[in-house]
Amino acid sequence: MRWLKFTASGKTSWGIIEGDQVIAVEGDPFSEWRRTSRTHPLDEVKIELPLIPRTFYCVGLNYLKHLKEAADKAGTVPAVPDRPEIGYRAQNALIAHDEDVVIPAIATEKIHYEGELVVVIGKKVKHLTEANAMACVFGYTIGNDVSERSWQKADRSLWRSKNADTFKPMGPWIETDADLARMETIVRVNGRETNRFRTNDMIFGVVPFLVELTKYFTLWPGDVIWMGTDGASPDIKHDDVVEIEISGVGTLRNRFVREGR
Amino acid sequence: MRWLKFTASGKTSWGIIEGDQVIAVEGDPFSEWRRTSRTHPLDEVKIELPLIPRTFYCVGLNYLKHLKEAADKAGTVPAVPDRPEIGYRAQNALIAHDEDVVIPAIATEKIHYEGELVVVIGKKVKHLTEANAMACVFGYTIGNDVSERSWQKADRSLWRSKNADTFKPMGPWIETDADLARMETIVRVNGRETNRFRTNDMIFGVVPFLVELTKYFTLWPGDVIWMGTDGASPDIKHDDVVEIEISGVGTLRNRFVREGR
Repeated sequence: MRWLKFTASGKTSWGIIEGDQVIAVEGDPFSEWRRTSRTHPLDEVKIELPLIPRTFYCVGLNYLKHLKEAADKAGTVPAVPDRPEIGYRAQNALIAHDEDVVIPAIATEKIHYEGELVVVIGKKVKHLTEANAMACVFGYTIGNDVSERSWQKADRSLWRSKNADTFKPMGPWIETDADLARMETIVRVNGRETNRFRTNDMIFGVVPFLVELTKYFTLWPGDVIWMGTDGASPDIKHDDVVEIEISGVGTLRNRFVREGR
Repeated sequence: MRWLKFTASGKTSWGIIEGDQVIAVEGDPFSEWRRTSRTHPLDEVKIELPLIPRTFYCVGLNYLKHLKEAADKAGTVPAVPDRPEIGYRAQNALIAHDEDVVIPAIATEKIHYEGELVVVIGKKVKHLTEANAMACVFGYTIGNDVSERSWQKADRSLWRSKNADTFKPMGPWIETDADLARMETIVRVNGRETNRFRTNDMIFGVVPFLVELTKYFTLWPGDVIWMGTDGASPDIKHDDVVEIEISGVGTLRNRFVREGR
């Protein structure tokens, strides 16, 4: 099932995508809901951010090629993590599919994309096991972990390099039936492919992360875990359009514009 | 004005504290509200977490003594930050005044408190200036940035050391009329004073942080900024009660219990 948050005729609600139509739903997928008789053509609705997570989790280094490229740039030896560790991103930075990433006027040219699988949590859970972990996953969406690399290098934390307003596009919808093992992530800049990797080739996969996180944290419905990215990005310039496709999930597309241009 | 989120007679709402009474309010302080005729004695209501912030900001190193003690323990030279930088904490970890901090069974004995002033944002703002920054501040509350120091040392990030469930007590209420310049932070363990510092003796104060953050971030009503702590903490043990008082704001009190004890 494909869940879309959308606006049509001035009304924002959840809906289910069937073919090229959206069936509006009353309620929300995390609690009570029912189909209505209201439908809209998918290409005539405004796609909204699926949700604002209560806690916004994000894995830093979770793919070998990305790790190696980051180490090469820093002139260091890649240190492969020996256990799953999580980071955070900031809710202020979230935008929807087709909304613009605004590169701050004071940013350098080192603006990079990171195409990431996003795990959407559906249940309140703690102390998960390998056997039951996947039952808390509601579905998957797509994230672009936009980064300003000069700030990332200069700062003690990832605050502005990863969390400036509009730096976290997420969407376009939540797919509940996608198969992790068959997913491929493909990134295109202005229609030209720049990255391709098997989405599930993670150093630590979704299950180990869910087990490790819930030793310490309660996960809540609507929490998201961004699973990291592989490979590297060219510098993204004003007016470039970045598309991140994950097979079986969808394609997240956002234009980048420089503030004041 | 002193704003309290509370539960009485099975109903949770906002209220205003006047003397030893709470006057229940319809609505919330960030939008429309009006007093009701319902009042309760303050000592008969359950004090709730004032809010769950949209984005949960927290300053790491913002007082000289804390910086020096952290550096001494690490065997390094204290590096005083040359500009304001922000970090994040996780919403899952928040608990209210008088709720228990649960030390995970797998944690070491190195459990420390950090008494912090919490700035509560009241308006949606960006690009603040020194002259207008304070106008976005709704009021102040108190936070205890509980930390497991062995994890903090062992991990690449602050994920479990600072964000395990119950590690972020916040409250008891929001005070809108407190005067930063006159505040003193006093910490007591089981009634015995263990720390005292001038709350506003920050390396970077509230105004520089608001100006710097809003170069990059939109702040939203209900966002919180924890401003860091001074000094050090003894190891907190099962059944210890930690109180953090900030003059003009109030006292946040929480018992620490070890999981499974």
